[in-house]
Amino acid sequence: MSGSAHPMDGEGELSAADMSSPRQRNTPFVHKVEVPPKQNLFNEFMYTFKETFFHDDPLRHFKDQSLSKKLMLGLQSVFPVFGWGRNYNLKMFRGDLIAGLTIASLCIPQDIGYAKLAGLDPKYGLYSSFVPPLVYAFMGSSRDIAIGPVAVVSLLLGTLLRAEIDPTTSPNEYLRLAFTATFFAGVTQVTLGFFRLGFLIDFLSHAAVVGFMGGAAITIALQQLKGFLGIKKFTKKTSIVAVLQSVFSSAHHGWNWQTILISISFLIFLLVCKFIGKKNKKLFWIPAVAPLLSVIISTFFVYITRADRKGVKIVNHLDKGINPSSLRLIYFSGDYLAKGIRIGVVSGMVALTEAVAIGRSFAAKKDYQIDGNKEMVALGAMNVIGSMTSCYVATGSFSRSAVNFVAGCQTAVSNIIMSMVVLLTLLFLTPLFKYTPNAILAAIIINAVIPLIDVNAAVLIFKIDKLDFVACMGAFFGVIFASVEIGLLISVGISFAKILLQVTRPRTAILGKIPRTSVYRNIHQYPEATMVPGVMIIRVDSAIYFSNSNYVRERIQRWLIDEEEKVKAVSLPNIQFLIIEMSPVTDIDTSGIHALEDLYKSLQKRDIQLVLANPGPVVIDKLHVSNFADMLGYDKIFLTVAEAVNSCCPKHSDEV
Amino acid sequence: MSGSAHPMDGEGELSAADMSSPRQRNTPFVHKVEVPPKQNLFNEFMYTFKETFFHDDPLRHFKDQSLSKKLMLGLQSVFPVFGWGRNYNLKMFRGDLIAGLTIASLCIPQDIGYAKLAGLDPKYGLYSSFVPPLVYAFMGSSRDIAIGPVAVVSLLLGTLLRAEIDPTTSPNEYLRLAFTATFFAGVTQVTLGFFRLGFLIDFLSHAAVVGFMGGAAITIALQQLKGFLGIKKFTKKTSIVAVLQSVFSSAHHGWNWQTILISISFLIFLLVCKFIGKKNKKLFWIPAVAPLLSVIISTFFVYITRADRKGVKIVNHLDKGINPSSLRLIYFSGDYLAKGIRIGVVSGMVALTEAVAIGRSFAAKKDYQIDGNKEMVALGAMNVIGSMTSCYVATGSFSRSAVNFVAGCQTAVSNIIMSMVVLLTLLFLTPLFKYTPNAILAAIIINAVIPLIDVNAAVLIFKIDKLDFVACMGAFFGVIFASVEIGLLISVGISFAKILLQVTRPRTAILGKIPRTSVYRNIHQYPEATMVPGVMIIRVDSAIYFSNSNYVRERIQRWLIDEEEKVKAVSLPNIQFLIIEMSPVTDIDTSGIHALEDLYKSLQKRDIQLVLANPGPVVIDKLHVSNFADMLGYDKIFLTVAEAVNSCCPKHSDEV
Repeated sequence: MSGSAHPMDGEGELSAADMSSPRQRNTPFVHKVEVPPKQNLFNEFMYTFKETFFHDDPLRHFKDQSLSKKLMLGLQSVFPVFGWGRNYNLKMFRGDLIAGLTIASLCIPQDIGYAKLAGLDPKYGLYSSFVPPLVYAFMGSSRDIAIGPVAVVSLLLGTLLRAEIDPTTSPNEYLRLAFTATFFAGVTQVTLGFFRLGFLIDFLSHAAVVGFMGGAAITIALQQLKGFLGIKKFTKKTSIVAVLQSVFSSAHHGWNWQTILISISFLIFLLVCKFIGKKNKKLFWIPAVAPLLSVIISTFFVYITRADRKGVKIVNHLDKGINPSSLRLIYFSGDYLAKGIRIGVVSGMVALTEAVAIGRSFAAKKDYQIDGNKEMVALGAMNVIGSMTSCYVATGSFSRSAVNFVAGCQTAVSNIIMSMVVLLTLLFLTPLFKYTPNAILAAIIINAVIPLIDVNAAVLIFKIDKLDFVACMGAFFGVIFASVEIGLLISVGISFAKILLQVTRPRTAILGKIPRTSVYRNIHQYPEATMVPGVMIIRVDSAIYFSNSNYVRERIQRWLIDEEEKVKAVSLPNIQFLIIEMSPVTDIDTSGIHALEDLYKSLQKRDIQLVLANPGPVVIDKLHVSNFADMLGYDKIFLTVAEAVNSCCPKHSDEV
Repeated sequence: MSGSAHPMDGEGELSAADMSSPRQRNTPFVHKVEVPPKQNLFNEFMYTFKETFFHDDPLRHFKDQSLSKKLMLGLQSVFPVFGWGRNYNLKMFRGDLIAGLTIASLCIPQDIGYAKLAGLDPKYGLYSSFVPPLVYAFMGSSRDIAIGPVAVVSLLLGTLLRAEIDPTTSPNEYLRLAFTATFFAGVTQVTLGFFRLGFLIDFLSHAAVVGFMGGAAITIALQQLKGFLGIKKFTKKTSIVAVLQSVFSSAHHGWNWQTILISISFLIFLLVCKFIGKKNKKLFWIPAVAPLLSVIISTFFVYITRADRKGVKIVNHLDKGINPSSLRLIYFSGDYLAKGIRIGVVSGMVALTEAVAIGRSFAAKKDYQIDGNKEMVALGAMNVIGSMTSCYVATGSFSRSAVNFVAGCQTAVSNIIMSMVVLLTLLFLTPLFKYTPNAILAAIIINAVIPLIDVNAAVLIFKIDKLDFVACMGAFFGVIFASVEIGLLISVGISFAKILLQVTRPRTAILGKIPRTSVYRNIHQYPEATMVPGVMIIRVDSAIYFSNSNYVRERIQRWLIDEEEKVKAVSLPNIQFLIIEMSPVTDIDTSGIHALEDLYKSLQKRDIQLVLANPGPVVIDKLHVSNFADMLGYDKIFLTVAEAVNSCCPKHSDEV
């Protein structure tokens, strides 16, 4: 430390060993690694419990409030609308109105197409854009999310349902199972939220979601080839091989050129509109209204030319009127109950993943907090109510939420506006969709799912983490070559494998002294860091638990053996001290302590002294109760690595 | 830093920001947080792969050796006997001979009893103490383990087999399934070892093993009440409720007082012998030979008094001769194949857990290394060969290994000695066991399993880690109230839950400055540590992965909000800087980087500057490729917390 009169630097100042160490020094302060005050069992348990399930302290606002205020806060916490509703003003309404109208024009054609993905009549898509957004507007806490049916969940639900019931032979049972699944999707979501198990959806990693979404988008686009090319006979499988076989085997006689003409011209129109919207953010409404415009123009065109008589498939029939009750259609007993629960749990979880990701990302952009668990309750409640009013699983839509955000939505009122437009459509406009060609719906869906194929994200994942990339590609190829279920399984499996790897193979690092400082850092990161002769410093970068205790012990011994060989080769002094930097070791369990004991015993045989630096509060407490700290000696536990080194070889530290 | 002329201490010396920070200082060294040299993809992958599966570098000895030497080393690595055999001498043989004879006298009566636990004829227990120890002696690397049938695995195997086949009605199929399970237990063990998946058994935590063993010991002891009390009709269930019902319902007419007399008197004899052995370590042979002595005395007594005619059950028949081949009895097809595989995998894993734990604990005592994966191959090979020579699953026995160690064994030769004694017994002495009362076997087994109930370990676990204790008790009560399988499931389940908790809820800590140093530590551990006004320092104690990235971000925001409220209450300066101490953050993935980005954006809205301290090599590399480091600014990344604080508020650091 140039310019300093004192030979030692800051970190070296303190010593837990000063009182007991044979080398007493004249430092004015003696500082021990402190054993934190003992908590009683109940407090300790409550703290852990709280951090696990209530880390966001949901009741904090209720503290020190009057009873009436508490009641109001309680009401607000279930229905956030009572919170933001009181400050709602006309300016906010203007933003919400424009956003609501925009997403409504986007959602109507999408809904009709997505319902088909789920194997349901188009009207159920519209129903699902009427009731769930209303419920969400009162209970949800995100201001930017746009609620309704989405492509991936529709595809997943459709695949899972078709595996149980054939919709062409038993359409009634199929519909009932769809409502049953929706009901249990909602119940799953409410349960996860209520019991604060929301963190379970975090186990689907970002990388896996990117791959899964990309694969699902391609699968959905391929499914659209039926409508896009006007193919009559089409496979029911979703794998890319089956679909392409189906497409090319019908190439000679099954394609319809009129249909293809409509599809391609409108797809180009949609893509051009999207490009314009991207170039100029102010023109966001162009890509947003383009789908509805396409529907209107193409419907009119088909009506005029009667192209439907030339093989252009049309929607043909769309019931008028609002959602009928479907409570009695839900299976609450029988064989289909268990199947409905299984399908509901899977699609409910995937729907949650999408909605929560959207909610979080927009909340971060506008800097407000979203309570993930409360959000789940809202989404669940909306699906439960939806299942009783002829809706299928609804969630937050990536594409529509982005449009909602860009269009300047302020609150969930934009969802209410959208819902009202859908209501009017259901009441008065459905007959107008009779001549809408299926081809246009296919083009709209293909256009809508393209952004889900996020190549940039995949490239970034590749750069950042190779194992994440494997998970991403596993999910992607699983979806397109096998099925959505398999893809989902692969992504969850790889995500779990990564967690297991993390807990079984923690990193360790050899530390060296950065010249002219008392800072010790990884010698692989800082090549100029030098090792102290006779001392080996190893940092363990994880809690030491049963899952890694043996690995950690063996790895430390291996480092030591390697180092001893090196030292012998260049006839440097033998290693006498092994310092373990414990700062990152946040916790230790009985297996970990046994590993330390084993290490201590084996080092003793070789005349190497084990020294610990900076064990955290939990660790020092456990070393204390297990008597390992006594066995090792409290004078071998230091506050910092520098201090430990000073005590081991005071000469070296003075050379600075 | 009293006594120093310079106002700043060591850690404060370095700054990544010095060149770019607006507050330039006169420090002579500029030190950046270094981005480690870029590795190519293949090297990176190989390193991770090697650390995961070959962290012990099993081929290191082969480097730079001649071909003949390499061959020799290869042979030694499969058959360690060629390694230690060459240095074997008479003095070592003396130790091994005494140890071998001692464990032989202990194993013979135990084997007979354990075979009954597995639902097999007594002779299969003896067979399993003849072939497997011989195979192990040539292939195994532990010097202290004693191989043979053990209580817990016998019970587990018996329970699993009986769930498939009733041994009284189809004894032949039962036996064949037992050999099939043994074969696949061996195959499982070899596979785990060969593919270096040995770490999988680490997922059964120490705490779970303690609970499981304790529960199994009690279950085994309860099962012995049949022989101990001379009950004829006995339940086939293992749960404590069923067994006690069975015992008391037969109290009036089913107990046999002569049997009870024999049992109780010899159990007392065995316990007294054990007590003597514990008091004086030199008399270790007394408890070791007591079981065989009891067998001899009681057999003689029954033969003289013909007590078997008064209802004292005797062994009655024990085949003479060595192991017949059983290769043709193994099911390699049919329904029982799948069942055999399932039972084999489960019992093979549990047997491994026991053997590896024993091997490790004695290796640590004598300071030699055991290669877990090689050990698994040896144990597996011995069970595969065993299954073809009428043996059932053998593994390392806790009690006999301890006796082997105390008796002074030097190498695996003690297992050969034991094996030879068992051979002689099989060839010549089996008829002598005809009049051995079952009661004495029950007393011997009860005596043998008592030490498995490790109350001290359970107390220690309770002290150290409450969640571990829950796992321990879960396994314990699961075994005694339900079944060994349920207990095993519970312990694995709780162990996994703990891992998930670890990765979803990492600890975070607020750091404060320890007075007169530049060391920043957890303010909850060091109450004298003070926070720097206007600066909040948070340490994240884990890699930031998809499983915890949202929690970490939310927790940091929560800490900040709490602190801002406190600061407002006492009208201190507002928080302007949030420093995240990244030392323990060993890795980060795409979700983690997204969380940091979200945090950065939300802090920006509040005019709080995000600052990072000491990101590790992997983390800085990923922050770099993801461009987050550019977004944040490299001048906001520091080598140490002290340095970061100095840059944020230079005034404060000068106040030291």
